[in-house]
Parts: sequence; C-alpha cells; structure tokens
Amino acid sequence: MISKVKNAMSTLVGGMIPHGHHQHHGSGNVHHQNCHQDGLPPLFPYGRPEFLDLTSELLQYSTEHASRPVLTLKRDSRLPWRTGYAETINAGKSMLNEDQASCELLYVKKLSDKKQSNSTLLDDNGVRLPEDGTGIPLQYWGMFDGHAGSGCAIMASKLLHRLIRDRLEDIAHLLENPSAALPICLSNNGSPYQGAVKKGANATQDSEKPDAIPDPSIRFHMEKAVSLESLIMGVIENAFKQMDELIEKEEMSYTISGGCCALAAIHLMGKLYVANAGDSRAIIIRNGEVIPMSNEFTPESERQRLQYLGFLRPELLGNEFTPMEFPRRIQYRELGRKMLFRDHTMNGWAYKTIVEDDLKFPLIYGEGKKARVMATIGVTRGLGDHDLKVYNSNIYIKPFLSCCPEVIVYDMSEYEHGPDDVLVMGTDGLWDVTTDREVADTVSGFLSCCEPTDPVRYTLAAQDLLMRSRGVLKERGWRLPNERLGSGDDITCYVIPLAGPAGPAGPEGPETET
Amino acid sequence: MISKVKNAMSTLVGGMIPHGHHQHHGSGNVHHQNCHQDGLPPLFPYGRPEFLDLTSELLQYSTEHASRPVLTLKRDSRLPWRTGYAETINAGKSMLNEDQASCELLYVKKLSDKKQSNSTLLDDNGVRLPEDGTGIPLQYWGMFDGHAGSGCAIMASKLLHRLIRDRLEDIAHLLENPSAALPICLSNNGSPYQGAVKKGANATQDSEKPDAIPDPSIRFHMEKAVSLESLIMGVIENAFKQMDELIEKEEMSYTISGGCCALAAIHLMGKLYVANAGDSRAIIIRNGEVIPMSNEFTPESERQRLQYLGFLRPELLGNEFTPMEFPRRIQYRELGRKMLFRDHTMNGWAYKTIVEDDLKFPLIYGEGKKARVMATIGVTRGLGDHDLKVYNSNIYIKPFLSCCPEVIVYDMSEYEHGPDDVLVMGTDGLWDVTTDREVADTVSGFLSCCEPTDPVRYTLAAQDLLMRSRGVLKERGWRLPNERLGSGDDITCYVIPLAGPAGPAGPEGPETET
Repeated sequence: MISKVKNAMSTLVGGMIPHGHHQHHGSGNVHHQNCHQDGLPPLFPYGRPEFLDLTSELLQYSTEHASRPVLTLKRDSRLPWRTGYAETINAGKSMLNEDQASCELLYVKKLSDKKQSNSTLLDDNGVRLPEDGTGIPLQYWGMFDGHAGSGCAIMASKLLHRLIRDRLEDIAHLLENPSAALPICLSNNGSPYQGAVKKGANATQDSEKPDAIPDPSIRFHMEKAVSLESLIMGVIENAFKQMDELIEKEEMSYTISGGCCALAAIHLMGKLYVANAGDSRAIIIRNGEVIPMSNEFTPESERQRLQYLGFLRPELLGNEFTPMEFPRRIQYRELGRKMLFRDHTMNGWAYKTIVEDDLKFPLIYGEGKKARVMATIGVTRGLGDHDLKVYNSNIYIKPFLSCCPEVIVYDMSEYEHGPDDVLVMGTDGLWDVTTDREVADTVSGFLSCCEPTDPVRYTLAAQDLLMRSRGVLKERGWRLPNERLGSGDDITCYVIPLAGPAGPAGPEGPETET
Repeated sequence: MISKVKNAMSTLVGGMIPHGHHQHHGSGNVHHQNCHQDGLPPLFPYGRPEFLDLTSELLQYSTEHASRPVLTLKRDSRLPWRTGYAETINAGKSMLNEDQASCELLYVKKLSDKKQSNSTLLDDNGVRLPEDGTGIPLQYWGMFDGHAGSGCAIMASKLLHRLIRDRLEDIAHLLENPSAALPICLSNNGSPYQGAVKKGANATQDSEKPDAIPDPSIRFHMEKAVSLESLIMGVIENAFKQMDELIEKEEMSYTISGGCCALAAIHLMGKLYVANAGDSRAIIIRNGEVIPMSNEFTPESERQRLQYLGFLRPELLGNEFTPMEFPRRIQYRELGRKMLFRDHTMNGWAYKTIVEDDLKFPLIYGEGKKARVMATIGVTRGLGDHDLKVYNSNIYIKPFLSCCPEVIVYDMSEYEHGPDDVLVMGTDGLWDVTTDREVADTVSGFLSCCEPTDPVRYTLAAQDLLMRSRGVLKERGWRLPNERLGSGDDITCYVIPLAGPAGPAGPEGPETET
C-alpha cells in the first residue's frame, strides 16, 4: 500500500495529477474526455488545506486509504473564532482526498483606501497579500467536495473567498453606511445616482422628487426596497458564478480536473451567510436544537428543474435521453404497455402508454445516493465540470448543472450564543451515515465535557464527529459503533463556535478566561 | 344600486355574461381580446354554488356590492362532514362574484362495475348522475377564484371533481388492493403486466425473476418503489391539466371567460390531498396549532421559474419584456449607469450597468399584491386564460402560467381529531387581511363556544371568519374591528371538520349525540 502511495506521491510532488487514476463512485460516474487538457500543467499542485501546515511526510501519510488518518489542526494553529476542523481520506474510491477546505480572515476595503495594484487574481498564484487589519473584517469558511479529480476543488479553495472579498469591495462604500437606504441606481463612479441633469433650460437635480414622466404606466413607478443583506447575498451568488467562469477560462492554459460541490460560510457585519451549491450540508446547533442552514442539490431534489430544461431544450439530451422519469429502464418488448412516469410538472406518478421515445435513457435515474443526471453525475450544483460529457458520447452535462448557490442568512445578533452553540459544516461523507440529530447530539455531548475556554475544544469536537462517520476498520470494512457501514467517502468538517466574535479567545486577541 | 344590479340580472338570467364589464384589479389587469369568442354562448350560466340552492331573488341579492351579504348554507343543507361554508361578493371590483365553489360526495367504481355509458363529461351539462352508494367514497371540496370573468371558474367548479373521479376509476383496481405493491408496468387491459412471453422455444413468464438482458448498464436495473399515495397525487395533477385542456377545447364552441385559481381538497381512503394552483390557501387548525396545507403561486413566489422560461425562450417575451427584474422602471437617460437587478439564478440583488435591452419592461414587476407577470396578471398558476394577452399586444401570457397544482398530503389516521380540528380553505380575499394565526384563533375561539354536536357550528364558524375579513361598511369603506381596511375582494371559505368521517353527524347517517 505504501509503495503504491509513494509512487503516487512522487507524481504529486511535481504537482501533476495523473489522469485516469480515479475510480468513479459517490458524486458520479464521471469521465472527463477533454483531450485538449492533456499535457497542460496543473494550476495549483495537490495539497491539503494551508492551515493544516502539513510536512511532505504528513501529506503522504494523509493519503493512506488503509488507515484513513484523521487530520486536525495543530495545537498552536489559530483559525478565526477557534474554529475546529477535521478531515480524512476516502476508503479507496480515489487515490487522493478530493475534498478541500479554506478558512480565512479577510478585510473589505474601500477601493480608494486600497493601494492600486495591477496584479490580477492569479498573479500571486494564491499567496495572500499581507492584510494590514484595516477595513471591514470578513470571516470565511469554505469546503469543496471534488469529483473526477481534485484540481477544481483546489482552485476554488484558493480563490473563491478572494472573489467574494473583491466583489464586496465594489460595494464597500455601501457597507460602511449600513443605515442608509440602498440606492437603486449608481453613477459610473459608484456613488448613488443623484439624478440626471435634464436637457434644456431648466436643468435641475430631480433626485428629491419622484420622476415626472408623461407615461400612462405611471402606476408602475414604485420602487422596491432592497436591503443590504440582499445585496451581500447577490455578491456571494455572483462570486460563485465568476469562480465557475474563471475555472473555464483557466482550463485553456492549465489542467483543472473535475468539478466540485462548494459550501461557504461568510460572516460579515453580524450576519452569517451560508452559501451552498451541491450536496454538502451546514447546520447550526443552538442550545441542542438543529437549525438547517443549507439544502442539498441532487438529481432528486432538482429533478423538476432539470426535466424542465430537457423539455424546453431537447437538443441538450442528444437524442439519447428522455426528460421523463420512469421507475426503471423500459425494455423494447414493453412498447405499447403502460408504465409509471412523471414529467417536470409532476410530483406524483401516473401511467402512460409506452412509445418508442420512452425507450431512451431517463435524464434523471436512480434513487438516493445512486441518483444520476444522464447516468453520469450525482450532484446538480457546483463549480467546474465544463468538459464533462456522458460516457462515450458528445453530450455535455454542464448545461444541466448550476453553479449558483442557495444563500441562507442567519442574524447572529438575534440570539446570545453560548460556547456550545456552533455551526457544523460537512461534506456528504459526514452526513451520509450520520443524521442532523446524531451530529447535534455528538457535538453537544462532546462540548459539554470540555472546558469552555479550552482552545482546542472545537477541533476535538470536529475530530470526534468525523470518527463517528468514518468508523473503525474491521474485517468487513469501516464500521460504526452500531456495526453499520461507516462512510467510505472523503470526509471534511468544520465546527465553528457562534459565540466566536464574542467568545473567550478571538483570533487575534490574547486568550482570556471567562 | 339595485337598478344597476337588476339590469345586470336580466342579462344574467339568460346566462350571458356581458363583456367588458369587469374592472381589473386583484388577480391582474387582464384583458381578453380573443374576438372569436364574441357571440358564442356561455357553457354554463352564471350562478352561485349548487349547494347554496339560491332562489333567483337570493341570487340577485347576492350581487349587491353595497351590502355584501354573507351567504351561508341553509340549516337543512348537508355537505359531507357537516362542512361549513360562507361567501360574499367583492366591494365593486367586478359586477359578479367571480369566486365559485363545489362540494361533492362521489364514489370511485371499478370500470367493470360501472354501467357502460357513451355519455361524455359534458353531455349531461354538469348534472350529476345519481350515485348508488357503491364504490370507494371520495369527499371533495373545490374553490375557484376567477379573474376577468366568471366563466372559467364556473366550468371548473362543475367538472374538475368529475375528472378526478374518472381518472381515479382508471386505477380503481389498484385502489381496491392498497396493500399490494404498486405495479410499475400494466398490460393494455390495465392489469399488472405479468411479463412478456419470449419469442422462441422457451416461452416462459419472467415476471418472477429479474430481467436477464445482456446489457452493460445492468447497474441501472433497479426499480423505484412508487406508493399508492404518489399515484393519487399524479391523478390529481393530471386532472388539473385535463381540466385546463378541456377549457381550451370548449372555448372553440362557447364563451368561457377569464381564468381562475383552483384549490381542491380530496379525501380518499383516509388521506386528505390538498391541491393548489394559485393564490388561495388551505390550513389545518389542529389543537389550536396551524399546519399549512398549501403554498401560494404568485409572480413573486414563482419569479425564478418565470424568469428561467423567459431566459430560455426569449421569443415568448415578444421583444417587449426583459427577463431581468429591476426594483423600478429604468429611464432612457439612465443608460450606462448601474442599477440593482436580479436574474433567474439569483435571490439576492446586484448592480449591473444599464444597457438598451434593460429598458424593456420587466417580466416580473411590482411587490406583494401588486406584483404582475408582464404587467398583466397577479397569479402564476390556475386554469384557463388561454386567450389572455398583454394589453395592446400579441404577447400571450399563458406559456408563463402553470395549471399544475402542488399537492400536499395529510394522513388523517396519524392523529385523533377533536370536533374543533378543522381544515380551512379560503380564496385570497380571506387571507389578504387575516393571518393564519388570526384565522386559527378566530375559528378555535368560535368553535369552543358552540356545542360540539350543533349541526351548523362549522357554517357559523365560516360565517364568523368571513365577516372578520370583510369587515363592516363605514364612511371610509369596509373596515375591520381594528379600523384597518377589510378585503374588498370576493371572499369564499370552507371550514371542514377533520373528525368528519368519525364525527357526530356524518353526511348520510342520522345525527347522533356523543
């Protein structure tokens, strides 16, 4: 086993991720066939999250499928809010751990306060510019569950937070005056539009009075109030889209393998924004109670959206797939009989007479973790996958995938959080074998046994949580205490204390006992 | 006022609904311009629900906008489960009450048990065939909130339940053996498909063994289990679609004015199926607690679905509308500036530089009750509206509307219902001014003061509820007790006791004291 891993590692160190070494389970039977990428260098070398600060020996150790070591933070590492973190590699489904994570404290500065720089996002190749601590602080936690390679997850873990920060800087002047009503229209210099100067003699500013236009549809001249919270949601949504476009662009010059689900939590100005595109999950555990902070996007949960697209744009199905769902494959000899089906308009099922077209493979097929889009991929939102095609065909999957996250907002100020109130973020490896309730009970039980001021209590809680989903290796595979199968997937989790900003040990300040 | 109504009534009695007499508020500024209908007779004459059994004098009285009489059931009328009902006309926005309702006890029979009849759905013009009490009983409550005329709502109130019953009869043999697993495939005669006879020498039935096909995609040969509940949901969904198609078809021969929201509750075999297409609402009040049984479908709640369609099929927008949403109309002089927007992928808002295309009218515009699709209609699901166009254009609205209901299922057997546990169904007139909580408190408070065995307690509760939303006429219009404006819309509501089937007075049996 070691020799195999060593062999792989020698490739790794050079940063090349060998093609075709992935076994495809979990997020899909995905096959990347885009030949133009062959021979291109990777944009970033394989590695584990920066904050783990692994030696190359530990990096090698982290890839051992036989022992599946649990990696956690070093005792002296400091993530914002004393965040806890743990990860482990899969049981053999892919050579490398395709999950990635990043955790950052950033500062949002007004463009005018920022030193002008011509460097683009990629110029420094992911190395952070030193922060001088001025601007609006932004805490960020991201996790990226890769499939068909780790390239896309690595790139997103290096860059997504910077895109979010940059987009927030475009509106920093609005963030700094949060009490002012959000201006609907901005001048080219970004300042609120103070009204146009009318042509003609009576040039006046008309920003104070309502528009006086001789328009019969005057009844529509109302304005919708837009909150700052909605604007920040929009920033996050568009940063995901920009990330996806950047991946596509850089694929011209680099090998950026596969795709990834993305789950990010952003704390800004007293609110927590949890953005999810994929099948990772976030929950808040508050006073032992579970508050869901994300919804999963899978072929089952997004069936109707995908069927609707296939219905409206049948050419995307390449004459191979039908937008109808059937409970199983139809055989040719069943033509003319009646079979259960549902289309994009239905949640229930009905019988239809089978016609020739129904013999095509269903766009959405399978149940639960085995559900697939076009027999290929098991998640419907995420980043990358631009070159993903149905096996042995020229049918692209990407039009059916969405890179847009759902953003759920949590107002931190509406509740006084204790030291055991946390946000738990995990890739599907965690949740596949452990329910929300079990996660809450595990974390709450563990934290109640730790000193509230213990600086590593959240890391230990994350480690404990992860072990509960991985299990221990027995003769019949990885087993949970109840003898059920543990998760064989890559597993990553954060345990983030919500008392963080007010908690006993902030990221910068000295530890104080409470 | 009376003379004006009388004048209208003389037209009414003949069954003709005069065109162009509707003022367009509420569900939309809708304009039907389909000239080919002019001169065609109405399919059904205007009237109020059959179960009200109104004399022509009372029918006339019911249209008085000045007094807005509340119509309830007669003391001796018997709806299934002692259902309570009340309605009132609008405060003047349309000449007639465009709400309609129907309540039926039907029986689902196997096709073989049914006398063969060549009559189609419309042959008896809505008159029910006598039921002989055999078959599976089905209780049905429907309400239809019409707009731009009452023709569509009347037609749906006469026929939708019969379509549902007929579709259920197609699967009656499956309903009668509810414990058996639902067959995925049926033979042409409707019986579960027992496997095809293989061509060649070894002709055997292969229904017992899994398909043995030399197919590399053998991993997909799993079967999804489909429940009887899902099949009944599918029946209801498809009955709505069929109703919509029937309206379109009959519009060739009759005037069927406008469109309508549709809300239907179906009780079958111990489960309650609540199907909603539009902005009516149903809630269960159980032990004083509110359980929502429907979601409203409006330009705001369905914004992303509609924008997605406009994005994928821009030709449907007729070069007049943009699929983007803006918080207000953009003026030409604002070209080049930045304005808040959101597209079909976003829930948040962002700024975009205004280009020429953004000057088009937004597909979705306005807030709350004033939100409209293409400046025309304020609901996004329902029946009819096939000829509805944007004012002064050739742009049809129908492609953006959906006739598919969302069906929510409630298992009656999971809770022992007391006499004060009810399902409340109401058109938007009820809910616009009264919250779920207020409705629950009003109904619970009222019922707790009535004898549990009083045969009219639910009718009185419905009447009380309706009065709370209509208010009383004061100098400054219809006012609620708190002086806020009452609803000026048509209002219809059902109060349906959930102890119904087991309650003290069933629809057929004699009243018994408990």
